Amino acid sequence: MESRVNFKKLEKRGVTAAAGFKAAGIAGGIKKGKKDIALIYSDKPAAAAGVFTLNRVQAAPVHLCKEHLHNPIQAVVINSGNANACTGLKGMQDAQEMAVKTAETLALKKGAVMVSSTGVIGMPLPMDKIIPGIEAVANSLGRGIDYDLATALAIMTTDTRPKQTAYRCSTPGGTFHIGGMSKGSGMICPNMATMLAFLTTDVKIERDLLQQLFAEAADSSFNVITVDGETSTNDTALVLANGAAENIEITPRSEYLPLFKEILSKVCQELAMMIVKDGEGLTKVLTLKIKGAADECGGRKMARSVLNSPLVKTAFYGEDANWGRIIAALGYSGIEFDPSKVDIFIGPYQVAASGGAVPFSEEKMKKVLQERDISILIDLKLGQSEVTAWGTDMSHEYISINSDYRS
Amino acid sequence: MESRVNFKKLEKRGVTAAAGFKAAGIAGGIKKGKKDIALIYSDKPAAAAGVFTLNRVQAAPVHLCKEHLHNPIQAVVINSGNANACTGLKGMQDAQEMAVKTAETLALKKGAVMVSSTGVIGMPLPMDKIIPGIEAVANSLGRGIDYDLATALAIMTTDTRPKQTAYRCSTPGGTFHIGGMSKGSGMICPNMATMLAFLTTDVKIERDLLQQLFAEAADSSFNVITVDGETSTNDTALVLANGAAENIEITPRSEYLPLFKEILSKVCQELAMMIVKDGEGLTKVLTLKIKGAADECGGRKMARSVLNSPLVKTAFYGEDANWGRIIAALGYSGIEFDPSKVDIFIGPYQVAASGGAVPFSEEKMKKVLQERDISILIDLKLGQSEVTAWGTDMSHEYISINSDYRS
Repeated sequence: MESRVNFKKLEKRGVTAAAGFKAAGIAGGIKKGKKDIALIYSDKPAAAAGVFTLNRVQAAPVHLCKEHLHNPIQAVVINSGNANACTGLKGMQDAQEMAVKTAETLALKKGAVMVSSTGVIGMPLPMDKIIPGIEAVANSLGRGIDYDLATALAIMTTDTRPKQTAYRCSTPGGTFHIGGMSKGSGMICPNMATMLAFLTTDVKIERDLLQQLFAEAADSSFNVITVDGETSTNDTALVLANGAAENIEITPRSEYLPLFKEILSKVCQELAMMIVKDGEGLTKVLTLKIKGAADECGGRKMARSVLNSPLVKTAFYGEDANWGRIIAALGYSGIEFDPSKVDIFIGPYQVAASGGAVPFSEEKMKKVLQERDISILIDLKLGQSEVTAWGTDMSHEYISINSDYRS
Repeated sequence: MESRVNFKKLEKRGVTAAAGFKAAGIAGGIKKGKKDIALIYSDKPAAAAGVFTLNRVQAAPVHLCKEHLHNPIQAVVINSGNANACTGLKGMQDAQEMAVKTAETLALKKGAVMVSSTGVIGMPLPMDKIIPGIEAVANSLGRGIDYDLATALAIMTTDTRPKQTAYRCSTPGGTFHIGGMSKGSGMICPNMATMLAFLTTDVKIERDLLQQLFAEAADSSFNVITVDGETSTNDTALVLANGAAENIEITPRSEYLPLFKEILSKVCQELAMMIVKDGEGLTKVLTLKIKGAADECGGRKMARSVLNSPLVKTAFYGEDANWGRIIAALGYSGIEFDPSKVDIFIGPYQVAASGGAVPFSEEKMKKVLQERDISILIDLKLGQSEVTAWGTDMSHEYISINSDYRS
């Protein structure tokens, strides 16, 4: 039976891999000579689910998305180059106007449009460029490799490359797809940071179930990556499910629910990892597993504390197995644990046992630390939970990029 | 009446400015060729008060200090070069042995000795150097400029200069002194980070009152400075009051209580500011005032969030008035506020009003940002509280220092 269900990665595909979706990305003049307006369109009204920044300062488009989230959705319009954050009442009006213009151009209701923005904070949107840009992008919609790429390029800011992935799942009941794109490289922290992700799928699914599954997938992907501990004002991850894959309906009792969950998580994790790997100025990608925390929530908080620690990050940049900085960062995470029980491994080698030093070969460790990908395992020996999180080192390049971003 | 009470800074003085205190600092061989063992001694038993790291991982000497805090104290022994943290049972035994050896050498009870350590985490203390070092330092005790300096030098780690200050207060009732020394430059964060501070005073005061006044003074000094957001395993600030200044007793109803509080806060703030100004790789010192938070505790938490933000710190390093990063850091501080009410000033110039941009002269702002000392004012317009906190920018040099500290 198992062999009749399989899934396949679709190379170079993203938001239009799923049936019934079109997309486009164009240069609207917000950023000099680069693509900066993207549009995703579904032929049919789609169920939408989303997770948003936990920052108390939330950009205007985030407010609009939350308002529209329970509506049937047919379009997502996104601009890069300006975040429309800290822009007051004018910002809310501009976000509304983006939705209205998109709806008019595509003959939809305003409430069927989601809006997203990323870029500089505190400057009004250049609506003189955005309004004609929306008309242009709506006239450019299409399906396939070229359209996926153009769309993924148009949402980039300091990203050095476009980020997208897609899967086709074949089952005896029919075929369905999940694909998506993301952006983000600086200001990335768990619980959403200036990162955007947009997923599309052609399964049929109730909104509430989609929201539940998407929130779970985000918790083990977008919410466990960190570059610099910053949580932005604009973070948004959305998924649209339009039901265009005939016969495939995902319900709590559907036989394909586990497959759908697995592929949804896979797409989210791949999109999240692409953000980490494009982290500003990184030279190392850190994969941190924390075993034995009292619960997953606490484990994640500890993982963030370690991966956000400037002293841990600079130690890995310096290729130094400084486990004392790791245990100190666990200690100020705010989560209860027993320091005298903690084991720590870097790569395959144990560096701390029961909270104290373990001798290791400096030579063998050097080889582990010279790699670009480094795994860290912490065993707290308290409970049964296990969480994995991803982060980066912090380099001279990080300082360079961020000390002259605005000017 | 007022004119009969005055106070005077004592140049180049520190822990032996107060009557009845002796001190010394010697090179015991823990660090190559540098002073690394310090001792403070009081002729009379002194009341002791202390504040300690909030990190859940606490070094052995921190545990010992907490045990001895309610005893009459006559000596504080401190070593640099090794933190005696994450050293398990052996670490506790070593800290005890430091107290025992100090007590024996000075003919005191073990419980009259406080112990403090700073340096590398996770390595056992070199007791073969520490034990003879304690004997040597006890035989070197004295009073005056040279002894103050030697003691302040012996507690340094990555510090580039010794840190000490002292005041003499003259009143119709007699004269008293408060002096002290501190260390710390990396791993500094509010709520105590690898920083040590040791104060001495010759007033007579009950332990409980001293503890209350010292905790208050720490909250507006050691607990509102940050270099990199790290809270260490060893942070300790202690004050000893030995009553050697005759006739001056500080009680809740004493007429000199306000003066004592003022000078105690002054000494703590000066010692804290010396740590900030010696911050690893800093090029700017940021003084952040937050007005109008609902309460002081929330205001301090917001101040930490802003001053620990890598994006805020790199923006100031890049001399960029990027107030969007400041408001985003307020937003993820975890404290409730209304973003649409926030005013922000950098130097004398307003950059944000009611959460939105205010035009300012880039030329005038450039002059403000080129200074080493930069003030930031945030008005939340919620409550009456006002807090001030200090931090630094984050430079290429910070990365260099911390990427090869251990190796």
